[in-house]
Amino acid sequence: MTLIKTLLPAAALIVLPTLGLTQEAAADTTPPNEEIGYIFTTFMFLVSGFLVMWMAAGFTMLEAGLVRQKNVTMQLTKNIALFSLAALMYYLIGYNLMYPGDGWSIDGVLGAFSPAAMEPVGLADTETDLTYASVGSDFYFQLMFCATTASIVSGTLAERIKLWPFLIFVLVLTGLIYPIQASWKWGGGFLDGAGFLDFAGSTVVHSVGGWAALAGALILGPRLGKYKDGRVIPFMGSNLPLATLGTFILWLGWFGFNGGSQLYMDTAGNVADISRIFANTNTAAAGGAIAALLLTQLLYKKVDLTMVLNGALAGLVSITAEPLTPGLGSATLIGAVGGVIVVFAVPFLDRLKIDDVVGAIPVHLMAGIWGTLAVCLTNGDASLGTQLYAIIVVGVFTFVVSGVVWFILKAVMGIRVSEEEEINGLDMAELGMEAYPEFSKS
Amino acid sequence: MTLIKTLLPAAALIVLPTLGLTQEAAADTTPPNEEIGYIFTTFMFLVSGFLVMWMAAGFTMLEAGLVRQKNVTMQLTKNIALFSLAALMYYLIGYNLMYPGDGWSIDGVLGAFSPAAMEPVGLADTETDLTYASVGSDFYFQLMFCATTASIVSGTLAERIKLWPFLIFVLVLTGLIYPIQASWKWGGGFLDGAGFLDFAGSTVVHSVGGWAALAGALILGPRLGKYKDGRVIPFMGSNLPLATLGTFILWLGWFGFNGGSQLYMDTAGNVADISRIFANTNTAAAGGAIAALLLTQLLYKKVDLTMVLNGALAGLVSITAEPLTPGLGSATLIGAVGGVIVVFAVPFLDRLKIDDVVGAIPVHLMAGIWGTLAVCLTNGDASLGTQLYAIIVVGVFTFVVSGVVWFILKAVMGIRVSEEEEINGLDMAELGMEAYPEFSKS
Amino acid sequence: MTLIKTLLPAAALIVLPTLGLTQEAAADTTPPNEEIGYIFTTFMFLVSGFLVMWMAAGFTMLEAGLVRQKNVTMQLTKNIALFSLAALMYYLIGYNLMYPGDGWSIDGVLGAFSPAAMEPVGLADTETDLTYASVGSDFYFQLMFCATTASIVSGTLAERIKLWPFLIFVLVLTGLIYPIQASWKWGGGFLDGAGFLDFAGSTVVHSVGGWAALAGALILGPRLGKYKDGRVIPFMGSNLPLATLGTFILWLGWFGFNGGSQLYMDTAGNVADISRIFANTNTAAAGGAIAALLLTQLLYKKVDLTMVLNGALAGLVSITAEPLTPGLGSATLIGAVGGVIVVFAVPFLDRLKIDDVVGAIPVHLMAGIWGTLAVCLTNGDASLGTQLYAIIVVGVFTFVVSGVVWFILKAVMGIRVSEEEEINGLDMAELGMEAYPEFSKS
Repeated sequence: MTLIKTLLPAAALIVLPTLGLTQEAAADTTPPNEEIGYIFTTFMFLVSGFLVMWMAAGFTMLEAGLVRQKNVTMQLTKNIALFSLAALMYYLIGYNLMYPGDGWSIDGVLGAFSPAAMEPVGLADTETDLTYASVGSDFYFQLMFCATTASIVSGTLAERIKLWPFLIFVLVLTGLIYPIQASWKWGGGFLDGAGFLDFAGSTVVHSVGGWAALAGALILGPRLGKYKDGRVIPFMGSNLPLATLGTFILWLGWFGFNGGSQLYMDTAGNVADISRIFANTNTAAAGGAIAALLLTQLLYKKVDLTMVLNGALAGLVSITAEPLTPGLGSATLIGAVGGVIVVFAVPFLDRLKIDDVVGAIPVHLMAGIWGTLAVCLTNGDASLGTQLYAIIVVGVFTFVVSGVVWFILKAVMGIRVSEEEEINGLDMAELGMEAYPEFSKS
Repeated sequence: MTLIKTLLPAAALIVLPTLGLTQEAAADTTPPNEEIGYIFTTFMFLVSGFLVMWMAAGFTMLEAGLVRQKNVTMQLTKNIALFSLAALMYYLIGYNLMYPGDGWSIDGVLGAFSPAAMEPVGLADTETDLTYASVGSDFYFQLMFCATTASIVSGTLAERIKLWPFLIFVLVLTGLIYPIQASWKWGGGFLDGAGFLDFAGSTVVHSVGGWAALAGALILGPRLGKYKDGRVIPFMGSNLPLATLGTFILWLGWFGFNGGSQLYMDTAGNVADISRIFANTNTAAAGGAIAALLLTQLLYKKVDLTMVLNGALAGLVSITAEPLTPGLGSATLIGAVGGVIVVFAVPFLDRLKIDDVVGAIPVHLMAGIWGTLAVCLTNGDASLGTQLYAIIVVGVFTFVVSGVVWFILKAVMGIRVSEEEEINGLDMAELGMEAYPEFSKS
Repeated sequence: MTLIKTLLPAAALIVLPTLGLTQEAAADTTPPNEEIGYIFTTFMFLVSGFLVMWMAAGFTMLEAGLVRQKNVTMQLTKNIALFSLAALMYYLIGYNLMYPGDGWSIDGVLGAFSPAAMEPVGLADTETDLTYASVGSDFYFQLMFCATTASIVSGTLAERIKLWPFLIFVLVLTGLIYPIQASWKWGGGFLDGAGFLDFAGSTVVHSVGGWAALAGALILGPRLGKYKDGRVIPFMGSNLPLATLGTFILWLGWFGFNGGSQLYMDTAGNVADISRIFANTNTAAAGGAIAALLLTQLLYKKVDLTMVLNGALAGLVSITAEPLTPGLGSATLIGAVGGVIVVFAVPFLDRLKIDDVVGAIPVHLMAGIWGTLAVCLTNGDASLGTQLYAIIVVGVFTFVVSGVVWFILKAVMGIRVSEEEEINGLDMAELGMEAYPEFSKS
């Protein structure tokens, strides 16, 4: 999703003559009209952006469906609040911090900590560069990625974390952690310079959410009664239709997530690429779901719906680092491996007594790592070493900084509700409002 | 949303030389190709229109989640029925009534009461004006605004109004009340001539729904047991995940609501403006949600999810009268004030014993008024006096005519179910069908 | 949705001089720029495609809401699995089978059983024909139609069919049955040659789903206790808000289903036609809902929400064979007849002891037949005889092949759960996971 990356095909022309474009296709790399190209790309960002915004509803429904009845209102509250706070923080500092402009000079740093600003109404009084898209559409689109990162964290830490410390963490994550590491790749920073490839963010978005969640889960500890006498006690989700709805919403939103990351829709070549991305994204999700479907049948003799849902999501995360270069078959397999990872990673985390309520660490962190490595399978420009290097750099940074923030929050205000509040549920304890006040508990 | 308004920037060029466009940007005000501009704008209306259509589902879920279990099927029925009836009435008379064409001459009036008609297939045999968009797309988009007005009313009057009188009111609202007052602004009528500014309808859509709901609530009276011995008895919503889903749907749909009201996407300037509108709409919703989050924590020591949801919606309503001219910071603050209004207006209405089941009057009427006035903060063309004048004219018209219709309905057929039916719930009494037949009541 | 059909207007120019285009409109049939037209049409397929993909969530929610609590997890599992399997099968064989290219020569047959392949990244090394859309976008769009067919089947057979035989049937339906019969019309096959008109698939998609479901329902038999001592025992849906949400999702998705089937958005004429289709699709749904609303009130003295929902869906199916040529009034009436059909067909099927859990046969098969015949009302190119011929050919093929597959599945592995499992519910029996584990049963 960096502008620089979009120049790679041009670079490829030089270094890889076998990929050279013919005279006919060469016409596809120049937009037929600059202003029309600008309208196409800008509108594409708006459509992609609203699809990614819709993913916030997807996470909310997924998580509300997978927590127990007594914690549903809290999960809903956290999700709408985190999305709103992400909008605020990304405006105030995140956007400019992520695109530092003139390369982190003193002026750049000061500019980086300034609020986002859009072009004037009607582009008046500007000599707008029409080769890309409007700043407003770019901000809108990029904001949704920042918010997605925060959505990932809320699921893992559900059912025991206090509301306000969680929201303070969201401020730091969306205002600093996400934009800083994202600038390394998408802001044209050192990871981008090193040749790291991450098309729509298997690492930059999903693994970052996963690392932040993992740090929180380790410091917060598992839910009461989850691991007892060496056994794992299953806590069933309270509303599986909601969880399924959330998965479908995320699946839908991912077309904007990956498709919009093409960054241009001004030529036939770019729109054909976006089409490839849509088709690959869909088939990777299907691959992940089918893998989990078959594998849970084989392993447990019963299909596990929550694994199928997470399998589809893992398929989506897996294809996110490179949704363009695979063919449909490769994309299906890359997604299927994501589904397999989830089926094994969920019980693995439980063995480590890391309590991840919705399976966000397997889906977003583990499948995110897999997807980042899988770029090498279909993109000749990728280097396994560089991909690993970036995974580690981003992982260490996010895990350490998140861990420090969680520790400070724990020391200063406490991050976990009391035992009694946890047993009674966060809805009554912290919010005084039940999600389903009339459905009696069995 | 009037064509005339889109000419204002041109007018501004003459009266406000400081806003004059430079040579470069001037290129942005002429579409690079008329037919391509027509395709862009028409497709933009279709995408915006389906987003606004989706808001009908948002209202349905919001209201179904906020009523008690025994009235859910009725609320679902009312919402799908009102959307369908709005489609019929706006086709039969609303659309032409709203755009009276040649200025209310005798011919105009006759023409105004004629059904909508689209261009022929393939634009055959027509000399189509390609400077705007297809009639079909305009009709489709405008219809959704009319339906939204009706959706607002159903929430306030829930849990006690009979099905059929409500639906008859919907016929009058969508066929006459909404189109007539909308013509005053968006049909180029006298409010438009007076310089009233209402970009996407804080007044024309949202306050009109709110006024009609208020008239109904006053005549219908509060639900049984709501106000008892001077106390307000809280009636908890039966399904908060649904209410949250509904809010996210509305938030998503609002991008089409406000963005599509730019009315043109044929130039770089117009698509950049739509981008501003998307970003501002999102941040205003976030501002409203955050304001309600903080304020309920401060006032009640507990965050109130339903207030946060309504805060987000109030933020959206607040920015609707002018989503273009504010910057991101102003838009956030305009939305935040909407959120504050909701937190204070909900208990205020209860003190007046006006029973508004879902908070539609605070959200759509009060924040709608605020939003209409707030135009003056960022749009130099707005006059506070004119904004107030239009708020009052539209308010008096809608409130009086709605009140008369409600009175007639009350006299002729009764609008309220019997006490026994209300206690048993409208689902069994009027429809004989429970929404959740297997979830036992606590 | 065949390319050939798009040439009909040109043909009409010759045979029907009265429909001849004027000089002005003639300009609308040539795209202003080939590459820009390619971008428009491709993007239109992507937007339409994601709307149709969203219908998978609609079917899931509709069906999860209409089955009893004990079978909800199974219904969710079937729906996400069938969508994933459809994606796989349509990639592996369906897509090429449906568009056999060089007319079923030996080479054609071999090619027909090959996996789908998209254009290379950036259209590199290709001499791409820019007069249509990218292969990736076409595949993505067409896949969603194939998946829709399978979604239709799952509702009818709910609450008693085993998971795996159902999924195996889905493999055959999406890999063979659907693509083969679809090739007859949309692949330029003999039904297309005969002049059969089915714009977006009242027959090709909806009736095919319906016939496959009918064959399954007959072989599977009704649910235990459904027909007892000559009476029909009503089994109430467990979650009507979900069913209503599903209906709204389908309504929304249908704009992509019908609108995208215009197949081109490269000219003013084409985008104006898509606008007509959006407006007609919406009004037909409204007509179907209103018809069911009024009719259930008249017949039963109580509005039946599930009939209103199915009425809206039947209106949508009815307009699908010809959403372009009707005016808004005709479209409303065509949809309304669909709603009437549903109200009478649901009890009619029950009298025949054909147990269709969600009413998919009335909605998709019966209204699909009506819609296919109704083409003759507004499209002068349609022949009633040809429409009937195609309905019968497609119906016999689908019903017989589906029946054979169901019989084989029944003989080989059994398709129905045991009586005890059916009574306990498929969720615990086959999956061991309840959809709402904490909501106690009444």
